[in-house]
Amino acid sequence: MSSTYCPLTPQTLLAWLQSVPELASRLGADPSQLRVNEVGDGNLNLVFRVEGPGVDLIVKQALPYVRLVGDSWPLPLTRAYFEQLALKHQALYCPEHVPQVFYYDEKQSAIVMQLLKPHIILRKGLIAGQEYPGLGQHLAHFLARTLYQGSVLHLSGQAYKELQAAFAPNHALCKITEDLVFTEPYFDAPLNRWTRPHLDAEIMQLRSDSALKMAAQQYKIRFMSHAQALIHGDLHTGSIMVTPGDTRVIDPEFAFVGPIGFDIGALLANLVIAWFSQAGHAEEQGSRDTYRSWLEAQILQLWEGFSVQFTKLWFDDAIRQSPSARILMSAEDISAFTGYQAHYMQDVFADSMAFAGLKIIRRVVGLAHVEDFESITDLMQRAKCETAALLFARQLVLGVAGIHGISEMLVRMHSAEKALVC
Amino acid sequence: MSSTYCPLTPQTLLAWLQSVPELASRLGADPSQLRVNEVGDGNLNLVFRVEGPGVDLIVKQALPYVRLVGDSWPLPLTRAYFEQLALKHQALYCPEHVPQVFYYDEKQSAIVMQLLKPHIILRKGLIAGQEYPGLGQHLAHFLARTLYQGSVLHLSGQAYKELQAAFAPNHALCKITEDLVFTEPYFDAPLNRWTRPHLDAEIMQLRSDSALKMAAQQYKIRFMSHAQALIHGDLHTGSIMVTPGDTRVIDPEFAFVGPIGFDIGALLANLVIAWFSQAGHAEEQGSRDTYRSWLEAQILQLWEGFSVQFTKLWFDDAIRQSPSARILMSAEDISAFTGYQAHYMQDVFADSMAFAGLKIIRRVVGLAHVEDFESITDLMQRAKCETAALLFARQLVLGVAGIHGISEMLVRMHSAEKALVC
Repeated sequence: MSSTYCPLTPQTLLAWLQSVPELASRLGADPSQLRVNEVGDGNLNLVFRVEGPGVDLIVKQALPYVRLVGDSWPLPLTRAYFEQLALKHQALYCPEHVPQVFYYDEKQSAIVMQLLKPHIILRKGLIAGQEYPGLGQHLAHFLARTLYQGSVLHLSGQAYKELQAAFAPNHALCKITEDLVFTEPYFDAPLNRWTRPHLDAEIMQLRSDSALKMAAQQYKIRFMSHAQALIHGDLHTGSIMVTPGDTRVIDPEFAFVGPIGFDIGALLANLVIAWFSQAGHAEEQGSRDTYRSWLEAQILQLWEGFSVQFTKLWFDDAIRQSPSARILMSAEDISAFTGYQAHYMQDVFADSMAFAGLKIIRRVVGLAHVEDFESITDLMQRAKCETAALLFARQLVLGVAGIHGISEMLVRMHSAEKALVC
Repeated sequence: MSSTYCPLTPQTLLAWLQSVPELASRLGADPSQLRVNEVGDGNLNLVFRVEGPGVDLIVKQALPYVRLVGDSWPLPLTRAYFEQLALKHQALYCPEHVPQVFYYDEKQSAIVMQLLKPHIILRKGLIAGQEYPGLGQHLAHFLARTLYQGSVLHLSGQAYKELQAAFAPNHALCKITEDLVFTEPYFDAPLNRWTRPHLDAEIMQLRSDSALKMAAQQYKIRFMSHAQALIHGDLHTGSIMVTPGDTRVIDPEFAFVGPIGFDIGALLANLVIAWFSQAGHAEEQGSRDTYRSWLEAQILQLWEGFSVQFTKLWFDDAIRQSPSARILMSAEDISAFTGYQAHYMQDVFADSMAFAGLKIIRRVVGLAHVEDFESITDLMQRAKCETAALLFARQLVLGVAGIHGISEMLVRMHSAEKALVC
């Protein structure tokens, strides 16, 4: 069976695991005791939990099509290869926030890795109103370490170009983003959907919003060609697993060398969505206010922590290399360098804001929606949350609000919500 | 002999050519009549002219080291592969301005191509004060076509990423640029040289110019990661061959997917160098004034021609794709799109200015100099030309002159020269 690709089932999985010599030591004393459950709730893959005495494994297998849509939308199995390759890089940069990979099987396009237990998907925790101490700091740490160490700022020209070449064949996954994030939300693409008829007027307005459409095209080009670092590529709150003390980022199958602000923007977008959706999950009016403040604190800590740590990693690198690279030779040099750093971080911030806005929009009007909004059963209420999020997202993309810092972003979130209530 | 690499000589070349079946039809009726001359005057390779009745060939062979420095500086032979690959792409985009490639031999790292005759190296023509009608327009056409058609704006995501991956292994040549253009001019690197002692004070000032050094670092990162299009990578006036009616761009061995402004900046830099050096070549004072005006016209035509044609190719593409891509659906959309185009071209212009400045500096204070200045035997005069060029270059890099358009650049060239005379 392992000689050609075949989608695994709970029935065939154990036999396959036992056929792999590299996994023998990981299946416990009596593999017949193992329980297997298919738990994939994502859009693309099969995911199996394998549990038993002393055994906690996840097997993730790519399907040759998009699970969300069906076999009419083929997708290369090689994405599993890029996912495990990205996980390997991330494990070098920041092992404390990624799952451990035990084995990758190229023929089955299957990754066998650590079962994160008792972790749940962050998005579900946010919907439930659960606080995770240190979440913002953990994510800041993950972002700073992976985005700096996999960047052109840190790597040698050769290592950086090798990284770029290694992930270039992952273009089919990039194409999904190019289409679903930057293009299809802005016209009547067949698979678009939205809360109807409540949002019909907003959708029509969006499609005739030339400035917004063109900004989306502009950031699509930037997504494709601003090759700053190895990025996760799909860093939403459904790609993060948490316990109150631990945070792990999973599912980097969209990884490639792209703009740093795309990962940060994706994460901010999904925290912003969680924030706007709280009104729809509140047990009674105002009961989620404290929770929203906690979300705001995470957003703040995420950007500020990322920014400070990324800048410091870079600065330390420059100081370390200075004797040979001869770059920082005087106090004036160091001052000019920190000026350049500040300018660079402003640029990343601006990118993050725009990408965040585009990511919010696609989750409201495109093909792939999110449970934060979808689980609000009162459609009037859902549409209200979504409309406020859309209004705010447009400001993020077009910068009309002149958002210069992360605190200003938080202020604008409140304004967008209030504008709608009045 | 063809089974392993061996540097060719005028003596061994004919036997090798005759051993290649693909070239049989190109060597004429009687190959013993062919004359072979080694004419390489560049920094890196062997170049042979092969001529005879009905036969005009160039054979360019890579050496495993930098010819300018010697075998202490090894350099991969694979650069010949990237050169012929770039020539193939350029021949698709703009055949009228590149030499035709007949054969590439991987084992010998040798390219057999059209001998351009009676062309001479543009740099030599500029030093001699020779006008080439249409030069600026030809170069604008070459730049617009190669830089647009090999860009992320034109290619599919897949084709673009394949191009990027194909040229990523050419990192050793990129490293030369990273070091010689962006880093070594700014400290006492062993191979730096300059007109001594006349420029000693300028060199010391440059090395303590923190703002300039840091700008060089900033543009190094941009050179490495702003992956807009397949660029030539070494587009100076020594990489262009001309007759009064024909212009051909040669030697793209530094090609990779990088910033568009790097090619434009390199070309502008070398035309600016030609301009500043004219005073040193004038037969009597003022005798090159008309020629300098002709050079200014070429600079103007080059940028404006490039800008107009690049924008038009892009616009036409967008209109052609619009029915399916659904991007330009209204007059407002088109207006927003042309606004985006203008913004993009401003960005390319700013990059071009900064890269031009850095390219001028490295030619005055770094390892590889140019004949425009070197052939001025009066060292006082040479130093004067070089100092004015340095002064102007610093303005280009730091944008202190606020150069918003190409005509302003020309005005600033005159000011820099006058500032020195006073």
